[in-house]
Amino acid sequence: MRIGIVGGGSVGQTLGAGFAKAGHEVVLGIREVTPETLAQPRNQARTLAEWQDETGARVVTMEEAAWRGEAVVNATNGAGSLEALRIAGTRNLAGKVLIDVANPLDFSKGMPPFLMAEYSGPTSLGEQVQAAFPEARVVKCFNTVTASVMTNPGLVPGEHDLFLCGDDEAAKEAVRELARGFGWSRFVDLGDIKGARAQEMFVVIWVRLWMVSGDPIFGYRIVR
Amino acid sequence: MRIGIVGGGSVGQTLGAGFAKAGHEVVLGIREVTPETLAQPRNQARTLAEWQDETGARVVTMEEAAWRGEAVVNATNGAGSLEALRIAGTRNLAGKVLIDVANPLDFSKGMPPFLMAEYSGPTSLGEQVQAAFPEARVVKCFNTVTASVMTNPGLVPGEHDLFLCGDDEAAKEAVRELARGFGWSRFVDLGDIKGARAQEMFVVIWVRLWMVSGDPIFGYRIVR
Repeated sequence: MRIGIVGGGSVGQTLGAGFAKAGHEVVLGIREVTPETLAQPRNQARTLAEWQDETGARVVTMEEAAWRGEAVVNATNGAGSLEALRIAGTRNLAGKVLIDVANPLDFSKGMPPFLMAEYSGPTSLGEQVQAAFPEARVVKCFNTVTASVMTNPGLVPGEHDLFLCGDDEAAKEAVRELARGFGWSRFVDLGDIKGARAQEMFVVIWVRLWMVSGDPIFGYRIVR
Repeated sequence: MRIGIVGGGSVGQTLGAGFAKAGHEVVLGIREVTPETLAQPRNQARTLAEWQDETGARVVTMEEAAWRGEAVVNATNGAGSLEALRIAGTRNLAGKVLIDVANPLDFSKGMPPFLMAEYSGPTSLGEQVQAAFPEARVVKCFNTVTASVMTNPGLVPGEHDLFLCGDDEAAKEAVRELARGFGWSRFVDLGDIKGARAQEMFVVIWVRLWMVSGDPIFGYRIVR
């Protein structure tokens, strides 16, 4: 499948590399593609020039990534996701599976971060992405584990669950199939896109568990 | 141990019955103890008159429950917890282990509920209880599972975790010991009382999981 990643940080790079390794055709979109942006140091990640060399995939504009992708991944910072997706283009997202991996975390008061007020309470970023791009088929997924576990769940020994939600059943199945390509086998479907409220709260728990243990490599399992 | 429960709803009744069955001396406090309040129908729970007959424990005022308890349980509705604990009495709580089981859920927009704005973001109910009663030794615990699982974790087959947090290590160990009496054996310590942010978010996830599955009997396991 052709996959367009929107966002060039560690999550976008890791998912892009993972999809490329799994045999998909990947393009990764950033705002401006110049020699400078490709060489720019990035927090906890390679430069995008290095990423291109390692993956064989191309860095393009956000607009081109959304246009080329049959599935599109929102791997931007949650605070800037709606703006980035507008740049990617409403028409380019229409009809597409849009995997929303973003978390609307507010680090303004230091650690631990908390959920941004405008994306919590009786709403969530996932819901607002779906509302802003009604023709996209939004699936919230992958946002509850650290980037390396997203594409390699086997890093965590033992069975653990991948959460997803969205309004479109076929889109959710498409995302499960992509996740199976990474080795995921246990899915917890949190229903329609309102489930994003729960999934985005998981990341606050995730940050807390990381803080108290010093180790971000873990997963969750719902036990019944 | 003498345990004072503050709150006569299903959570207070279930925990009170569980502690009594485990051999503790239990009193359960409500605002006004009258023949009418004891006979009053309660949402998803017995009348308190029935509860007294079944458990052999006594219903008293909130103030007496806090005064008598060596450990005190906040089993009130999260929206009213601070007020209820003020009625229970600051002096009666001083030096006591205060187990905060309450969840600040807002049902005003129907299902699913969400966390009340004043107790989410960069704060939580657990933190605000600790701040309002600085001499109490607050431990947030039991708030992430349905009442019947709190006192009977074996209802969920398979190993699952009980979360707790608080500023006082000895108080946390006292709560672990009380939980062991119910059969809990796996604990995830979320650190100081700021961990209540994570634990209170779990309940939103819990409600969602219940909604999509139709079954509230489940637990969580952190997989490493």
